Amino acid sequence: MAGPSDSPRRKHKVTVVGSGNWGTTVAKLVAENTREHPDVFEEEVQMWVYEENVVVPSDSPHYDPAVGDAPQKLTSVINKYHENVKYLPKIKLPSNVIANPSLVDAVKDSSILIFNLPHEFIGNVCKQIKGHILPFARGISCIKGVTVTDDKVELICDYIGEILGIYCGALSGANIANEIANELWCETTIAYNTPPCDQRLTNGVNGAHGAGVPVRFPKTKLTPLPEDYPPLDHGEIHKLFDRPYFTVSMVSDVVGVSLAGALKNIVALACGFIEGHGWNATAKTAVMRRGMLETIRFAQEFFPESIQEMTFWESAGWSDMIVSCTSARNWRYSKMAVERGVSLQEIERTELNGQKLQGISTTKEVMSFLRARGREDHYPLFKAVEGIVDGTFEVKDIPMLFRK
Amino acid sequence: MAGPSDSPRRKHKVTVVGSGNWGTTVAKLVAENTREHPDVFEEEVQMWVYEENVVVPSDSPHYDPAVGDAPQKLTSVINKYHENVKYLPKIKLPSNVIANPSLVDAVKDSSILIFNLPHEFIGNVCKQIKGHILPFARGISCIKGVTVTDDKVELICDYIGEILGIYCGALSGANIANEIANELWCETTIAYNTPPCDQRLTNGVNGAHGAGVPVRFPKTKLTPLPEDYPPLDHGEIHKLFDRPYFTVSMVSDVVGVSLAGALKNIVALACGFIEGHGWNATAKTAVMRRGMLETIRFAQEFFPESIQEMTFWESAGWSDMIVSCTSARNWRYSKMAVERGVSLQEIERTELNGQKLQGISTTKEVMSFLRARGREDHYPLFKAVEGIVDGTFEVKDIPMLFRK
Repeated sequence: MAGPSDSPRRKHKVTVVGSGNWGTTVAKLVAENTREHPDVFEEEVQMWVYEENVVVPSDSPHYDPAVGDAPQKLTSVINKYHENVKYLPKIKLPSNVIANPSLVDAVKDSSILIFNLPHEFIGNVCKQIKGHILPFARGISCIKGVTVTDDKVELICDYIGEILGIYCGALSGANIANEIANELWCETTIAYNTPPCDQRLTNGVNGAHGAGVPVRFPKTKLTPLPEDYPPLDHGEIHKLFDRPYFTVSMVSDVVGVSLAGALKNIVALACGFIEGHGWNATAKTAVMRRGMLETIRFAQEFFPESIQEMTFWESAGWSDMIVSCTSARNWRYSKMAVERGVSLQEIERTELNGQKLQGISTTKEVMSFLRARGREDHYPLFKAVEGIVDGTFEVKDIPMLFRK
Repeated sequence: MAGPSDSPRRKHKVTVVGSGNWGTTVAKLVAENTREHPDVFEEEVQMWVYEENVVVPSDSPHYDPAVGDAPQKLTSVINKYHENVKYLPKIKLPSNVIANPSLVDAVKDSSILIFNLPHEFIGNVCKQIKGHILPFARGISCIKGVTVTDDKVELICDYIGEILGIYCGALSGANIANEIANELWCETTIAYNTPPCDQRLTNGVNGAHGAGVPVRFPKTKLTPLPEDYPPLDHGEIHKLFDRPYFTVSMVSDVVGVSLAGALKNIVALACGFIEGHGWNATAKTAVMRRGMLETIRFAQEFFPESIQEMTFWESAGWSDMIVSCTSARNWRYSKMAVERGVSLQEIERTELNGQKLQGISTTKEVMSFLRARGREDHYPLFKAVEGIVDGTFEVKDIPMLFRK
């Protein structure tokens, strides 16, 4: 039996890899929690910052006349004023968030790595830190979604885990960084499937959540979390992320959370098309619902061993779908395209400076994956979105997809 | 084996009981379908109209100078101009919708009765037609919801069925009558659990949908549908309601559909409170989601034998919840109350001429039912809504309900 004398001697050190507005927001809330739980976590939270020069504007409270308009290092400004003046201005960070320009130094000795940076940088960043992290570190990816090729659907958290040889869970939800930074309440979902090698008996009860849940881990052999660390289970991860303004639900279904975070982008395009065509909320909810049913079908078809249907009722499921189909980028620009009677490609050119809408690539990748298996006709809404993007299907025909 | 020589000799006659804007809309779409399926249905659709005098305005295309401003019978106007000038103006009805001022005459010989009138009139109407309908008639209730007392939760369709001694299903969804009347596309859910006495073998296969679904019927012994009528199963009901602009999904879970249609009113109040307080879409979807989880919990707790979780992904579930929490009455006025810092009772007085908000009575009835069983603490959001209505709970404390 575990007793007081067996209390862990070490604490979890936390690093946030990334410092955009979402990364900085997560660093803020995590640092508030490490202060509140000094028994489990080291107070100091490292935040890796891609170093750049910034000029503090003269109307900022952090403007220093002695420095004037001279460029300063972003990390120095953050550590001096406890504000990310470039990516999360006007939000006071706890003083225990430490900006670090060295990626390798920032992750050193950390047992918890939180990945929060744009999708396209993740591979490179992981390669740089590989071999420089604790072998038993655990990750949480705040990068939503999956990577789909004709061969496979790979979760981003699995991709991170495989490169680094660690276990990595996923955080996803109906979350808007600036609202959370301003402590406007919302909730999120964290999927974490405690690896068997980390599970401990606490008072005779296995401390890991998710008994009976099918286990999915990177193929790499994992190094167990040493016994002199506090356990790292749903309870501790909840402590690290949950705030009065940020309610965390823990689940074990990493696949469901990741798929919902990716496929919603296809559905958001569909909802934009529907509203751009002049239909109202009742039609939009119909399409959202059909899109969710196709998402659940996709999950059940390709990940039958690990999916749990209740996951789609989480914030990462239903709530994120609603918000993405009501106010996010994919929705906004697909609506605009139909209203103006132009293609999405035209909107990318004229409104987005050539930037790509994520929903378009997700649609094409998912359809190509389905087509490689002869399954495209079982996903009529996804297929219709592809057709509308390609100009081979008309928005007005969407309702006909659902006729018996 | 059934063969061509055994084809039914009779057809289903349809009556819509009610002629408000939703009743008239349903009569329109049903009459379009009876015309398209003359093998199953009699073309003429009876619509019972509570007779009243109307004056056709002089700018109406149906204004007759010979009649002038003299009052005319509403039924005569409908049958002459094929428009319900009072409750669904400017919508052309098919000429096979026949307005009938006699309730008893309207339901005579009809094998399909569609109930579509305000909740408070249904008991009286059923008592008037009892004994005047075909004993094997079948009903579809377009009246959403349930009646809750401390003793029991009664589905409105069951209530109709029990009074009349017939089986009655339920239609519910994210539907706005005027949009459907204008043929703007949306979808709906019809729950119908074909009674065993109506189930027929067709080509050696039982024609009834829902094999394996637990059966729930009025305690009354049902009279089987005679063999010389076409069967009345999911397929035929779908034919009667489904239109290119109105996509129907058939389910067998009458309980889930009815509960979702009632409990959403509590959640809509909660969402109004949240938005009135100044929180945004992310907080609102969090509350909507928690409300849906309490709805599912309620259904599973009190109707474990008949509920199907997938029902809540139907239009009657998720879609109706979203629309009700975004644009409907309960939401609008609860938002207004918080914005103005007044009680909902005050809003009923000043904005609704003393009319009652349905969500308030639903909340009180459901909480009283739960309290009678000592279960109120398992439904924290429903309980909080009651507290806010009563002035004993503050909106700002809603997020705290969901902290672990």
